[in-house]
Amino acid sequence: MTQAEIRPADSTPVAHWVHQLKRSALQDMLVLVSQPGVLSFALGLPAAELFPAEAYARAMAQVLTTDPRALQYGPPFQSLKTHITALMKQRGVLCSEAQVFLTSGAQQGLSLLVRLLLNPGGVVLTETLTYTGFQQVLEPFQPRVVTVPTDPATGMEIDQVEARLARGPRPALLYAMSDGHNPLGVSLSPGKRRQLVDLARRYQVPIIEDDPYGFLQYESSSTPPLRALDDQWVFYVGSFSKILAPALRVGWLIVPESLVPALETIKEASDINMAPLTQRAIVAYLDTGHLAGHLEKLRGEYRARRDAMLSALRQHFPPQASWHTPASGMFIWVELPEGMQAGKLLERAIETERIAFLPGQAFGMHDDAWARRCLRLNFSNSRPEQILEGIARLGRLLAEF
Amino acid sequence: MTQAEIRPADSTPVAHWVHQLKRSALQDMLVLVSQPGVLSFALGLPAAELFPAEAYARAMAQVLTTDPRALQYGPPFQSLKTHITALMKQRGVLCSEAQVFLTSGAQQGLSLLVRLLLNPGGVVLTETLTYTGFQQVLEPFQPRVVTVPTDPATGMEIDQVEARLARGPRPALLYAMSDGHNPLGVSLSPGKRRQLVDLARRYQVPIIEDDPYGFLQYESSSTPPLRALDDQWVFYVGSFSKILAPALRVGWLIVPESLVPALETIKEASDINMAPLTQRAIVAYLDTGHLAGHLEKLRGEYRARRDAMLSALRQHFPPQASWHTPASGMFIWVELPEGMQAGKLLERAIETERIAFLPGQAFGMHDDAWARRCLRLNFSNSRPEQILEGIARLGRLLAEF
Repeated sequence: MTQAEIRPADSTPVAHWVHQLKRSALQDMLVLVSQPGVLSFALGLPAAELFPAEAYARAMAQVLTTDPRALQYGPPFQSLKTHITALMKQRGVLCSEAQVFLTSGAQQGLSLLVRLLLNPGGVVLTETLTYTGFQQVLEPFQPRVVTVPTDPATGMEIDQVEARLARGPRPALLYAMSDGHNPLGVSLSPGKRRQLVDLARRYQVPIIEDDPYGFLQYESSSTPPLRALDDQWVFYVGSFSKILAPALRVGWLIVPESLVPALETIKEASDINMAPLTQRAIVAYLDTGHLAGHLEKLRGEYRARRDAMLSALRQHFPPQASWHTPASGMFIWVELPEGMQAGKLLERAIETERIAFLPGQAFGMHDDAWARRCLRLNFSNSRPEQILEGIARLGRLLAEF
Repeated sequence: MTQAEIRPADSTPVAHWVHQLKRSALQDMLVLVSQPGVLSFALGLPAAELFPAEAYARAMAQVLTTDPRALQYGPPFQSLKTHITALMKQRGVLCSEAQVFLTSGAQQGLSLLVRLLLNPGGVVLTETLTYTGFQQVLEPFQPRVVTVPTDPATGMEIDQVEARLARGPRPALLYAMSDGHNPLGVSLSPGKRRQLVDLARRYQVPIIEDDPYGFLQYESSSTPPLRALDDQWVFYVGSFSKILAPALRVGWLIVPESLVPALETIKEASDINMAPLTQRAIVAYLDTGHLAGHLEKLRGEYRARRDAMLSALRQHFPPQASWHTPASGMFIWVELPEGMQAGKLLERAIETERIAFLPGQAFGMHDDAWARRCLRLNFSNSRPEQILEGIARLGRLLAEF
């Protein structure tokens, strides 16, 4: 996949940074994989067949027939914040409703936080390979991005974070995913979590903890997010996209209460307010108490898909290829044997097999030789039998390389 | 109403511009007027009792029961763009689907366009009194804002626009509302529209034409928007908020096709994509063909409310107060006799009468002596009998001044 430059007509005077804007690989993929007949391991899509569509339709009908104000403008809905504090408690996070800030999905949460914290040309600390949506949020600020590598088995290299912080300058923010890292699939070890939060405190650097997958845990035990360790320097980003449905466009931040008024104004400038209709419908759904069972179902189903993919990889991928078992999230990161190129595999996979995935370099803050022979495989959006079939076909292509 | 500073805790290092951030008067109002018993002429709220809630509930149920992909992520929905081109044709605007860009309401449209066009510290040309949401969009850019006055009878002073453009420097954008100006209620005369578009072409300055009220016309004839006169320099901002319901959070831009890829990437960084569910539900509603009748009903009802307010003003306000009849939109701008202060009237009105409105200076790009004795009155969100009663009570308060 080529990341074409986006060229506005020369005649329109756009802002300087727009001239460096790259077209989003993910957006192109979203169009590609919407085509019939494409088997996609490419995007972080939840399984559409698992959406609680009927229950949500009932909740929506109830709200629309009983409360016309749900279609009006309106302030954030307190009962939704109450539900979110209860949800966070399940993750081991204690927070007050006054610390919960509602957003149009996690992506908006990131966008608002970066707007709040980052000056144009400021310094940002993050991982060498990281979520592309965060990279996009940074683009208009043209920041100085400082990166540390990530160990695919234990997560972000915290010693290198410390070295960077000690050397200075102090970054405006540090971006981290502690569970089900996108794209690497790894979850941070408990020791690393403590170490990272200690550094944030010591160097007074806000951590944006992006946690869209935190409720999707596949092992018997999991570790609470960074926010459980600190309520001043960890700004938590959560979302209903992966646990209910992306089209709700509802997520949340957990931040120090003193930052909420500024975030309210930034949010108002972005899109005025959250849709009261959606907030009320989610509350009506959550009030039924069905979420716990739904989450159990999701975890069971995604665990089965993950395991199907791991088993197919063992069976069909070359023995020199390697990967780890993700304890959370939606992705397996596969390292191909030296000399192989994930980009070339993708071209051939789409052309001859109608199978899509994302090559590792799509997630590189900078060009990265290692990432070029890695691929990110999504396991949440295909059924186990499709996964077995698709990985077998990718394995055959690899054997021909 | 005081616009309190927003003070993040000193310990959190936020971006520089955040220290100058003002709390939004409108957001405070939205909380205030949500209280029971407050009669509000303050906000630009449509009438909740006129929302097509039942028809929209049917459309939503239809989508949710037939298409689970509506709850997934997804690219913009082509059929919605088709409906929008047809709608725009009713306003005298010819555009292609490829020029339509879907947004989460008009506010997001403004926010995306400003991000596209404006460099930090750049120059913006707009009116002395203008929509506060646009002012908020500008804040993070800390631009140099150049303003021209607006004639309450004929709209923006185009001669002064020309003088400003001739003097230079060229602004990154010019912001205008050609119909139902917020807060002044005025619509630009046809001659001024032509003159303004000619200037945009001659000086190569993009006009952001904000048109949330364009479909709410109360006189027998109306003038097409600026976009009907030019498809290269006029960037049109439209919305379903005022003609269907704000909680849909769906609006649109009409821009040169060459700018769409950049806008797609900016939108993706902001909140990934439009909710497919809402797009499909709106299409299902529009497919029934009910919008034309609904618009007729809205125009009739809002015209009656406008006329009730005009009649009450004539009866109860001091003879030295003045106003014009708005041909479109939701607001009447009232100038009080010299020596009176709208802010003081508001304090007393809230305290003793539980009536709210916005004083003119809430819309000032800079402090403005004239605006301080003006008020913006919304007529769309109260029934005629409430309007008569409320204006009579405001009139009594004024008589005591």
